[in-house]
Amino acid sequence: MTKKKLHVAMIGSGFIGKVHSNAFRQVGHFFDVPYELHLKVIGGRSRAKLEAAAAQWGWEEVETDWQAVVGRTDIDVVDVAVPNALHAPIAMAAAQAGKTVLCEKPLATSLEEAERMAEAARKVANLVWFNYRRIPAVAFAKQLIDEGRIGQTYHYRGLYLNQSGNDPSKAAGWRYRRSEAGSGAAGDLLSHAIDLALYLNGPIRELTSMSHTFAAGRDVDDAALLLARFGNGSIGSFEVSRYGVGCQNRNTFEINGSKGMLQFSLDDMNRLDFYDATEPANLRASRSLAVTGPDHPYWEKFWKPGHVIGYEHPFIATLGDFLSSMARGDTFHVNFDDAVEVQRVLDAVERSAVSGHWIILDNSSR
Amino acid sequence: MTKKKLHVAMIGSGFIGKVHSNAFRQVGHFFDVPYELHLKVIGGRSRAKLEAAAAQWGWEEVETDWQAVVGRTDIDVVDVAVPNALHAPIAMAAAQAGKTVLCEKPLATSLEEAERMAEAARKVANLVWFNYRRIPAVAFAKQLIDEGRIGQTYHYRGLYLNQSGNDPSKAAGWRYRRSEAGSGAAGDLLSHAIDLALYLNGPIRELTSMSHTFAAGRDVDDAALLLARFGNGSIGSFEVSRYGVGCQNRNTFEINGSKGMLQFSLDDMNRLDFYDATEPANLRASRSLAVTGPDHPYWEKFWKPGHVIGYEHPFIATLGDFLSSMARGDTFHVNFDDAVEVQRVLDAVERSAVSGHWIILDNSSR
Amino acid sequence: MTKKKLHVAMIGSGFIGKVHSNAFRQVGHFFDVPYELHLKVIGGRSRAKLEAAAAQWGWEEVETDWQAVVGRTDIDVVDVAVPNALHAPIAMAAAQAGKTVLCEKPLATSLEEAERMAEAARKVANLVWFNYRRIPAVAFAKQLIDEGRIGQTYHYRGLYLNQSGNDPSKAAGWRYRRSEAGSGAAGDLLSHAIDLALYLNGPIRELTSMSHTFAAGRDVDDAALLLARFGNGSIGSFEVSRYGVGCQNRNTFEINGSKGMLQFSLDDMNRLDFYDATEPANLRASRSLAVTGPDHPYWEKFWKPGHVIGYEHPFIATLGDFLSSMARGDTFHVNFDDAVEVQRVLDAVERSAVSGHWIILDNSSR
Amino acid sequence: MTKKKLHVAMIGSGFIGKVHSNAFRQVGHFFDVPYELHLKVIGGRSRAKLEAAAAQWGWEEVETDWQAVVGRTDIDVVDVAVPNALHAPIAMAAAQAGKTVLCEKPLATSLEEAERMAEAARKVANLVWFNYRRIPAVAFAKQLIDEGRIGQTYHYRGLYLNQSGNDPSKAAGWRYRRSEAGSGAAGDLLSHAIDLALYLNGPIRELTSMSHTFAAGRDVDDAALLLARFGNGSIGSFEVSRYGVGCQNRNTFEINGSKGMLQFSLDDMNRLDFYDATEPANLRASRSLAVTGPDHPYWEKFWKPGHVIGYEHPFIATLGDFLSSMARGDTFHVNFDDAVEVQRVLDAVERSAVSGHWIILDNSSR
Repeated sequence: MTKKKLHVAMIGSGFIGKVHSNAFRQVGHFFDVPYELHLKVIGGRSRAKLEAAAAQWGWEEVETDWQAVVGRTDIDVVDVAVPNALHAPIAMAAAQAGKTVLCEKPLATSLEEAERMAEAARKVANLVWFNYRRIPAVAFAKQLIDEGRIGQTYHYRGLYLNQSGNDPSKAAGWRYRRSEAGSGAAGDLLSHAIDLALYLNGPIRELTSMSHTFAAGRDVDDAALLLARFGNGSIGSFEVSRYGVGCQNRNTFEINGSKGMLQFSLDDMNRLDFYDATEPANLRASRSLAVTGPDHPYWEKFWKPGHVIGYEHPFIATLGDFLSSMARGDTFHVNFDDAVEVQRVLDAVERSAVSGHWIILDNSSR
Repeated sequence: MTKKKLHVAMIGSGFIGKVHSNAFRQVGHFFDVPYELHLKVIGGRSRAKLEAAAAQWGWEEVETDWQAVVGRTDIDVVDVAVPNALHAPIAMAAAQAGKTVLCEKPLATSLEEAERMAEAARKVANLVWFNYRRIPAVAFAKQLIDEGRIGQTYHYRGLYLNQSGNDPSKAAGWRYRRSEAGSGAAGDLLSHAIDLALYLNGPIRELTSMSHTFAAGRDVDDAALLLARFGNGSIGSFEVSRYGVGCQNRNTFEINGSKGMLQFSLDDMNRLDFYDATEPANLRASRSLAVTGPDHPYWEKFWKPGHVIGYEHPFIATLGDFLSSMARGDTFHVNFDDAVEVQRVLDAVERSAVSGHWIILDNSSR
Repeated sequence: MTKKKLHVAMIGSGFIGKVHSNAFRQVGHFFDVPYELHLKVIGGRSRAKLEAAAAQWGWEEVETDWQAVVGRTDIDVVDVAVPNALHAPIAMAAAQAGKTVLCEKPLATSLEEAERMAEAARKVANLVWFNYRRIPAVAFAKQLIDEGRIGQTYHYRGLYLNQSGNDPSKAAGWRYRRSEAGSGAAGDLLSHAIDLALYLNGPIRELTSMSHTFAAGRDVDDAALLLARFGNGSIGSFEVSRYGVGCQNRNTFEINGSKGMLQFSLDDMNRLDFYDATEPANLRASRSLAVTGPDHPYWEKFWKPGHVIGYEHPFIATLGDFLSSMARGDTFHVNFDDAVEVQRVLDAVERSAVSGHWIILDNSSR
Repeated sequence: MTKKKLHVAMIGSGFIGKVHSNAFRQVGHFFDVPYELHLKVIGGRSRAKLEAAAAQWGWEEVETDWQAVVGRTDIDVVDVAVPNALHAPIAMAAAQAGKTVLCEKPLATSLEEAERMAEAARKVANLVWFNYRRIPAVAFAKQLIDEGRIGQTYHYRGLYLNQSGNDPSKAAGWRYRRSEAGSGAAGDLLSHAIDLALYLNGPIRELTSMSHTFAAGRDVDDAALLLARFGNGSIGSFEVSRYGVGCQNRNTFEINGSKGMLQFSLDDMNRLDFYDATEPANLRASRSLAVTGPDHPYWEKFWKPGHVIGYEHPFIATLGDFLSSMARGDTFHVNFDDAVEVQRVLDAVERSAVSGHWIILDNSSR
C-alpha cells in the first residue's frame, strides 16, 4: 500500500526547530504513520543557520522568505517554530493557503490574536505543540483521573521554574523582549502549566494573580503567580518564574483528591508519583511509578519497560498522534481552539495582575 | 552551685500537653539549664485524663480549675496547652499574676486579642511554641541566609498540607469549630508557615488571599492560600490545607535567591537541601544535607553526627534556649510580640479572602 | 497498685551510656512499664565523667569499681555499656550475682566468649541492645514478611557504611584497638547487619568473606564483606566499612522476594520502601511508607501519625518490651543466646577471611 | 566537501537491532560524522521480521543468510546484533573479510572465544556496544575520578538487578538457554557492571564468587555475586540478578574514595550523585547533579541543559565517537581487546563459583 506523501515546510532554525526536525525524522520509526513525510523546505532569517540545519537534518531546500514558502503549492504542511510574535502572520497565511498548520506554543501574544488564528485555522488540520500532555507519565496521570482513581479533586498545584532570567547569556534572547515574545514567563512557562491544568483538571472559573519583573528595564514579566477556582470545585495555585534559582526545568503538578494524590515533575519525566488513599492505612504511601511500561501510554512505541525516554519523545508522540488523527479526519488535541483557552487564562492573569482584582473567566464559548 | 527552682504548671492534657511534658522532662538532659524544674501541677477539664498524664509524666498534682492554678503563689511558670480560644484568658491571667508564660500557637483567635495578650505579657518572660524555628535544619537555613549564601531573595514558597479534614476521626475535634479554634487551617497550619517566613525572609508588605471550606456546614477554613510581597523585594506564595490528601504533615519552604536555593520539608526534618549557584556550572546541584552535625545548630546537644532526632527535639531546644535566655534576662524569640506579627498576617489573610482585594500590612509598629 | 521497684546500675559513661540513660528515663513516659525504675549507680573509669553524667541524668551514685557495683545487694539490673572486651567479665559477674543483665552489642569479642556469657546468663533475664530490630519500619518489614507479602525470598542485601575510619578524630578511640574492641567493622557494624538478617531472613547456612584494613598499623578490620547462602534458599551479600566516605550512618537492607521488595535505610529510619509485585503491572512501584502510624508497630507509643521519631526511640522500645516481657516471665529477644548466633556468623566471617574458603555454619545447636 | 560513504549491514532484528538502527539513523543528526552512512542490508532469520524492520528504519535490503551478507564486497561495516553464540562466527567472518565490525555485548560465550575474536578483529576497526560508558553521567564520573576529585579509591560497588527471570514471558527467550547465550545473568548483566568497573576503577586482581540458578531445570545462572580486590588497592563487590524483584533495570555503581563518593543508577540515568569530602563539615553532602550540561560530556550534542536524554542516546554517542575515531585512525574504546578483559573476569567468576576459591586474574597480557 502506498502512503500519501506529505511535503513539510518548517519555519524556524532555533532550538525548537531542532526538536521539530527530530520529530519529523523519528515519527515513522516509532509510530505507524499513515503518510510518507518529505522534509522539503526549512525557512528562517539566517541563510547560514538554515544551511547548517538543512545539512544536519536533511531538509531539501532553505528559504529566507517565509511568505514564499507558504505560497508554494508543493507544500502540504507548514510548521511554525519562530518567536511568538511571528506565529500569527505565518500560521494564518498558511491556514489561508489551505496548509495543515503546526504551531509552537504559546499560540499567540494576545487572546484576540489567538482567537483570530483559531478562526483562520478552523478549516485545516492544526496542532499546537503543547507536547507535555504526551509524556507517558502525564498521559497516565490523565488516565488515572479519568478512571476515578483520584476521586473528587480538592487541590491542583502547578509550578514551572527555571533560572534563565538570572543568566545573562539567556536573558539576552528574544524571549525577554515584549515585541517578539508578547510576554515573559507567562507565555513561556505559564502557558505550559495552564495547558496541563486544563487537560487534567478542566476549566478555570476565576482567578487572581500577580506578576513581577526582577530585572530593571525589562518589559516582560519574570514571574507570574495565581490563585484559581476551577469549574469542578477544586482550588488551584500556580507559580512560574525565570528566577527559580536552583531549578533548571522544573515543571511540576500535584493533585490532591478525595481518593488519592498525583505528583509529576519534568525533571524526572519518566516517573509519576501516585498515592492511593483507598488502601489500608498502614500501606498508604506515595509510590514512584516508572511510567515506561508495561501497560502505560506509548509504552510499546519506544523502548522496553524500564528503559527511559528523553525530552524529544513527547514531540514524536504528538506528531504521531496528530498524523493518525488527520488521516482519520478526527479533531486533534491540542489544537488552536484548545490553545485559545490557555490564552484566555493568560489574558485574565495579565489583567488581574494589573487590577489586583479577581477575574471571572468567560468560558461561555466552550 | 544550687540552681534556682522553677515550679511549673501546665494547663492542658491533650497531645500537645504530652509534647510539652516531654520537653520539661528532657530539657535538663540535653541542655545546661540554669534552673531546677519542678513539675508541680497539671490542669485541665477531665480529672481522669489529668491523673493519667500526671502518673505518666510525674506531675505532682492535678487541678481542674485553671484559675486556681494561676492564682497559686507557689507556681513560677504557667504553660498554656489548651484549645486556642482559651489561650487569652489563661495567658493573660497568668501574666497578670506575674508568672512566666509559655503559650501554644497560634497565640490568639484574632489580631486584637493577640495584641492584648502581648500587652499583658510584656512584663513577664514569655514564649510562644513556634517550635519549628529550632529544628536544626531550619536554624541552619537561617544561618546560611544570614551568611549571605542565598544572596538576594527572589521567591519564598511555603506549604503546609495534611489530610486531617478529610478524615472523619480527626475532623470531629475542637480544631474544626470556630468557637474553640478561632479559625481552621489558617491558625493551625498557616500560622506555622508564616512564622517561618517572617523568621527566614522578614516582614510581608502586602498580600492577596483565598480561603475555602470543603465540608458543608463547617464554620472554619479548610484551606488558605495567599500571594505576597515581602519587604525585601521578594515574592511569596503560601498554601495550607487540611485536604492535602497524600500528605501527613508536609510543612515545607523553598527560597530561591540570587546565589542559591534552600528547600526544607518537615517530612524529612533532619535534612536541608541547598543549591549553591556560585559553584562551577558542571557541579551546581542541590545537595541534601543531613543537618545532624558536625557544626550544625544544636548538634552537640542531642546525639552524634548521623543520628537523627525526632518530632519532640525542637520543643526541647525551644525550652532550653528560653530558660537560658530568661536566666540572662534577654528577650527570647518567638515571644508574644513576635506572634502578634504572625497574627497580623493571618488577619490580613482573612480580610483579603473576604474582600478579594490586596491588603497592605501595617507594620509601622515594628 | 504499687509497682515493684527495680534498682538499676549502668557501667559506662560514653555516648552509648547517654543513650541508655535516656532510655531508662523515658521508657515510663511512653510504655506501660510494670516496674518503678530507680537509677541507682553509674559506674565507669573516670570519676569526673561519671559525676557529670550522674548530674545530667539523675543517677544517684557514681562508682569507679565495677566489681563493687555488681556485688551490691541493692541492685537488681546491671546494664553493660562499656568497650567490648569488658562485656564478658561484667556481664558474667552480674549474671552470677543473679542480676538482670543488659549488654551492649556486640555481645563478645569471640564466639567462645559469647557462648560462655550466654551460658552464664541463662538463669537471669537478659537483653542485648540490638536496638534496630525495634525501629518501627524494621518491625513493620518483619510483619510484612511474616504475612507473606514478600513471598519466597531470593536475595538479602545488607550494608552498613560509615566514614569513621577515615576520620582521625574518631579513629583514635577504643573501637580501633583489637585489645578493647575484639574486632573492627565486623563487631561494630556487621554485627548489626547480621542481627537484622537473622531476624528478617533466618539462619545463614554458609558464607565466604573478605576483610580489609586500609590504615597501616591498625590491628582491626576496616571493612568486611561476605557472600552467603541462607537456610531458606535465598542468597545474601553483606558489606560493612568504616571507609564508606560519603556515608554517615548508612545501615540498609534490601530483600527481593517472589511477591515483592523491601528496602530500608537508617538514614531515613522513619520510612520503609515496599514494592508489591502482585499489583497490576501499570501500578507496580516502590512505595515509600512513612512508618509513623496508623497501624504500624509502636505507633501509639510515641507521637501522632506523620510525626517522626529519632535515634533514641528504638532503645526506649527495646527497654519497654524487655520490661513487659520480664514481668510476664517470657523469653525476650534479642537475648544472649540470640547474640551468640550473630557471633557465630562473625566467627565464620573471620575464619573465611583468613582461609579464603567457604565456611559451613554449624547451626545444629539451634 | 564530500564525505566518504559507509555501507552498513546489520545482522539481527530483535530489540537491540531496533536500538542500533536508531543509532545509525540518528548519529548524523547530533554528531559531526565524517562519513555518509547507507543502511544497506538488514540480516536475520525471519524474513517477515526483517521486512518490517527494513520498512520502519529504511534498510534497503533484507537477507536471511548472514554469510551472504558478510561476503558482499559492497558492505563496509557489519554490525552484529544477534544472540551471543552467533557473535563469534559472524564477527570473525566479517573481520576476516576486512569489514569494520561492531558487536553487541557480551563479546563472546567464553574467554577463549573472545580472545580468538579479538585476534581476528585486530586488523579492522572494531567496537563492542558497551554503551553505558557514554551515558553523560558515567562519562562525567570518569572525568571527576581522573581529575582526582574522589582521591584514592576505597570501595567499588556494582549492582545490576532486573526481574526478568521471575517473569515467564521473558524467561522463555534465548537469554535463558546456555546454547545460545553462553551464560545467564553473568553475560547479560555482569558484563555491563564489570565493563564499568574496569573503565572507572581499573583492573581486578583477584576475586571470589558465587552463582545461583533459582529456576529448576534452567541451565544458566540467574544471579552472580563476587568480592574482588582491584589493582589500585580498593575493594569491590558486585551483585547481578534476574530475580531482583522490584527492579526493572537497576544498574548502579558507587565509589567511596578518600576525597569523595560517586553514585549512579541507570534508573535515573541523567543524574550523578557526588559527595565532596573536602568541603567544610557542615556543608558536606551528596549532591544530585543533573548531568545535562552545561559543561558535561556530550551536553552540546543533544538538547539544552535541563532537558533529559533517554535510553538510546548513549548508543548514538558510542557510534558518533567510533566514527570520528575511525576517521582519525585512532583506537576506539570499548573495542574487542577491551571486551576480552571483561570476559577474563567473567571466566574467573565462573571458575570461582565452581571451585569456591579465590582466583588470581592473569592480567599480564595487558
